[in-house]
Amino acid sequence: MAKKRILIVGGVAGGATCAVRIRRLYEDCEIVIFEMGSYVSFANCGLPYFIGDVIVEEDKLLVATPALFENRFNIRVCTDTQVMSIDKEKQRITVCDLKTDEQRIEYYDALVLSTGSQSVWPDIQGLDLPGVHVLRTIPDSRQIRAQLENIKRAVVMGAGYLGLELAENLQKREVQVTVLQSSDQVMPSLDKEMAAFVSNHLEQHGLEIKLTCKATAITQNDDHSLLVSLATGEQLTVDAVMISIGVKPRAELAIQAGLEIGSHGGIRVNEFSQTSDPNIWAVGDVVEVKNVITNQWQLFPLAGPANKQGRLAATDIVNKKLMTMPSVPYRGVQGTTVCGLFGLTVATTGVNEKTLKSCGSMEYEKVYLHPSNHVGYYPGAKPIHIKLLYDARDGKILGAQALGESGVARRIDVLASFIQMAGTVYDLEEAELCYAPQFGATKDPVNLAGMIAANHLRGNHPLAKWEDLADTHTQVTEEQDDIDQMLAFIMDDPYAQAQIVDVRTVAEFARKHIPHAVNIPLDSLRDRLDELSREREIWVVCGVGQRAYNATRILQQHGFRVRNLSGGMQTYATFAE
Amino acid sequence: MAKKRILIVGGVAGGATCAVRIRRLYEDCEIVIFEMGSYVSFANCGLPYFIGDVIVEEDKLLVATPALFENRFNIRVCTDTQVMSIDKEKQRITVCDLKTDEQRIEYYDALVLSTGSQSVWPDIQGLDLPGVHVLRTIPDSRQIRAQLENIKRAVVMGAGYLGLELAENLQKREVQVTVLQSSDQVMPSLDKEMAAFVSNHLEQHGLEIKLTCKATAITQNDDHSLLVSLATGEQLTVDAVMISIGVKPRAELAIQAGLEIGSHGGIRVNEFSQTSDPNIWAVGDVVEVKNVITNQWQLFPLAGPANKQGRLAATDIVNKKLMTMPSVPYRGVQGTTVCGLFGLTVATTGVNEKTLKSCGSMEYEKVYLHPSNHVGYYPGAKPIHIKLLYDARDGKILGAQALGESGVARRIDVLASFIQMAGTVYDLEEAELCYAPQFGATKDPVNLAGMIAANHLRGNHPLAKWEDLADTHTQVTEEQDDIDQMLAFIMDDPYAQAQIVDVRTVAEFARKHIPHAVNIPLDSLRDRLDELSREREIWVVCGVGQRAYNATRILQQHGFRVRNLSGGMQTYATFAE
Repeated sequence: MAKKRILIVGGVAGGATCAVRIRRLYEDCEIVIFEMGSYVSFANCGLPYFIGDVIVEEDKLLVATPALFENRFNIRVCTDTQVMSIDKEKQRITVCDLKTDEQRIEYYDALVLSTGSQSVWPDIQGLDLPGVHVLRTIPDSRQIRAQLENIKRAVVMGAGYLGLELAENLQKREVQVTVLQSSDQVMPSLDKEMAAFVSNHLEQHGLEIKLTCKATAITQNDDHSLLVSLATGEQLTVDAVMISIGVKPRAELAIQAGLEIGSHGGIRVNEFSQTSDPNIWAVGDVVEVKNVITNQWQLFPLAGPANKQGRLAATDIVNKKLMTMPSVPYRGVQGTTVCGLFGLTVATTGVNEKTLKSCGSMEYEKVYLHPSNHVGYYPGAKPIHIKLLYDARDGKILGAQALGESGVARRIDVLASFIQMAGTVYDLEEAELCYAPQFGATKDPVNLAGMIAANHLRGNHPLAKWEDLADTHTQVTEEQDDIDQMLAFIMDDPYAQAQIVDVRTVAEFARKHIPHAVNIPLDSLRDRLDELSREREIWVVCGVGQRAYNATRILQQHGFRVRNLSGGMQTYATFAE
Repeated sequence: MAKKRILIVGGVAGGATCAVRIRRLYEDCEIVIFEMGSYVSFANCGLPYFIGDVIVEEDKLLVATPALFENRFNIRVCTDTQVMSIDKEKQRITVCDLKTDEQRIEYYDALVLSTGSQSVWPDIQGLDLPGVHVLRTIPDSRQIRAQLENIKRAVVMGAGYLGLELAENLQKREVQVTVLQSSDQVMPSLDKEMAAFVSNHLEQHGLEIKLTCKATAITQNDDHSLLVSLATGEQLTVDAVMISIGVKPRAELAIQAGLEIGSHGGIRVNEFSQTSDPNIWAVGDVVEVKNVITNQWQLFPLAGPANKQGRLAATDIVNKKLMTMPSVPYRGVQGTTVCGLFGLTVATTGVNEKTLKSCGSMEYEKVYLHPSNHVGYYPGAKPIHIKLLYDARDGKILGAQALGESGVARRIDVLASFIQMAGTVYDLEEAELCYAPQFGATKDPVNLAGMIAANHLRGNHPLAKWEDLADTHTQVTEEQDDIDQMLAFIMDDPYAQAQIVDVRTVAEFARKHIPHAVNIPLDSLRDRLDELSREREIWVVCGVGQRAYNATRILQQHGFRVRNLSGGMQTYATFAE
């Protein structure tokens, strides 16, 4: 009897993982990978760092070679081979050897589509000019590196992870970089006020960031430099333009074969990565995934989930085609990301507030905090800026965003673990995490986030939000979404419904404060209660929220209606500036 | 009506936290802290680093002053005040002002014992000689610092966290340090084979480590140097001796008052930190705590748990004495620790194998792995050595130990979170953690640990242990606990029941291998199956276990009885050397 044949289309990340896992589970089948490009299993996440010469040798990017697949795993790899079409009734594909242009038919028992994603191109003229690049493959990176010595100025279109990593690495190579972003914030996975920290950091490190800014055309100057025209009328003369405005599933094969496609353009799969055809599986950037928190379909083109899907698809393929073994369902994506930019780590897990708002039905609360990565008395403590989102009813953790110089991925990984296990803010309070002076604090940032949120839910610690004022005051109702308007309102109207009390020291207050705020340092608060309003709510503010918490407790017990402005002046800065 | 009085005995960590939390929850009561020493709320975890001049200013160690307690929290602090006795029937204590030697009576509605722990002293002569120190307080550290320029050589007795931190910091100050440890490993919280990595690292950084080594006497030489006599007959001439062999609860007050004391000498408390007397609570190093995994009482004198207990005790005191509010029970300790030594981070969570063995009833399994902190293609990848212990029946995570230069606390914190949430190795497989090239891998070390363990439990990946051979072979039954004997047995007897097959390259094998191992590189394994035994079990070994996993899968499917020697040559080294 002929051996069963498993064909894999696309040999990077999910596809490669799937192929190897099938072989580990089952020796006696034929496995073939078809890869359109010249390399399989290369480190695409490393490409920006290859541009920046952080990774110096191109060979390092080759995680596994066709020879390794052959010798170690008995898997045949056909590079430079494009799959042209799928005949799902006859269980066969037509492939084309791109070097000879010869086509042939290959039969399969199981087919895995791991075709990945492709760059989204903006709808402007000039994209075919020399000097306009995308960075998706090793040849792309080779091409950019080859031209680097002639690139003094560049525009990066798109301020997502890849765009910003590329911008940083270009700057490392002495390129002056302007980043254009069509929306009003960098890093769309963050909420806007958290993204403001990042923009600020990037500008401090020499990048020019232009938000709410679109290019309308790219043309070539007489000296062969490129002229990028912006919607504002401004024009930028640069030597290169990098396109990084997003990716979309490379789903043409699946569409042509009549497989079910989701509303985001990705292939629809079940929890075992099986498509609408029982002999075809799909994994990685090309599929849509269910978000574990919103339970909605989305795209999430990252390498980690691709690998996990590839691994689970392999088990299911073996189970359904080769031998009985239990399949393991994919739990969906939860949105964990991390990015390092000029020494700043930016990480997220779960959903952001934008998403919660767009879902509508979810009752959520949020806290901001700015603890140090470790105790202040040990040298080198650095703040971590954290936003935690949780269910207002039961305290279940919904999402977190964090940024800082040190210890950020650690805290987000912990929060990711609690989200996975359906943990609540009460669980965070109790978490017993690593503590020694150089590693944390007896109350770790994760504990603190839990404590603030849990105190809030228990009613011991009412929190105010910058948006609340607008929500409850008719004058600005129409402007609810516009934070600048809200702040202008707070600042201009000393008779707003809330009295803002700043409990920092006189010196701190003198340096900077919210307009019309009253300064009563925490340590004299008990003696000055008669200065405070019993008619209006009192909103207390301090540096990061901790002293204001103590003030809130004092005032609450003295019968005042009081709330803590979550995150203090540190959070204020991101809203106001 | 007189205000209720809450008295706190001991103003560091748990006591200080408890006092402040009570005040936050309730304004209208009297709170007094009695502290025997001259400082409250000081950073005792920072003391070794103050010796090492990492922390330069003594003031940095003062987390909070009596003035801050008074002004911010309306809490009175009596330093240099010793509590002499408790009259629990009359709800009063006798306190002594150590400066004036005057005694007075103080009544309480609630009493909190946060008296901490004290050093265990070895039973040898010479402990009163000048130059013999303990490091527990700011005055202790001041005294050691004052004499540092005369200390060229020192003995540190005790290789626990504090002893080793102190040894490192003394060495930073140009002191030549010998560490004596009575047991056969450093860091008792680790299992012995993991501790071997640490010993090795410490010796590479210039510490002299003497295990299974006891001092019998300290005497003074004519030149005022100290002579430390060892049980071996050896004598060490040094300028200082630091005693750090352990701590014990400072429970005298509780004993005198007739409170229930546990078998480890700590105060017994319920889940709300309440002692056997309903008006007295106890928190921190002085209490015994329940281990969440073994469900057994133990001592766990660390600052993190002390703070958590103090916080929860405060809520319970307010609830039972001041106003109704829900008390929150303490979940117990789970054993999370971390320590940094010469650039190596050593961290643990949950229980170790020694403890599981001593419990007896628990069916556990274990895996070793040595993944990099981040992908190898990004510069600066460093190995993390991990031991994961899990329940053999359901995969529940029981404990983990990890060490390495980078990313160690992060992985242990993640594992700690999963343990808290009753997570299994299957949950670890699926964890969606931070990945970018400089932060991790698509299969994070935590994922890998889960995958290896889960494959093992599913039967796809049988693991061998170094101890297994001894367990199943009568010749060495009596020596089961002696790893050296086991290895000697493996090495000397080519006819041992298992054939050891090393699947690394010929060059790797030539550099170092297990005696009598056969070398069949992985990539030629399928062609050389006829060289392998079908009578005996085959134990496969490689560098860290990954290639051997592939080999195990190949051999298993070809009908061999095969197991992977968990952790490969990296783990072998810790057993053998």
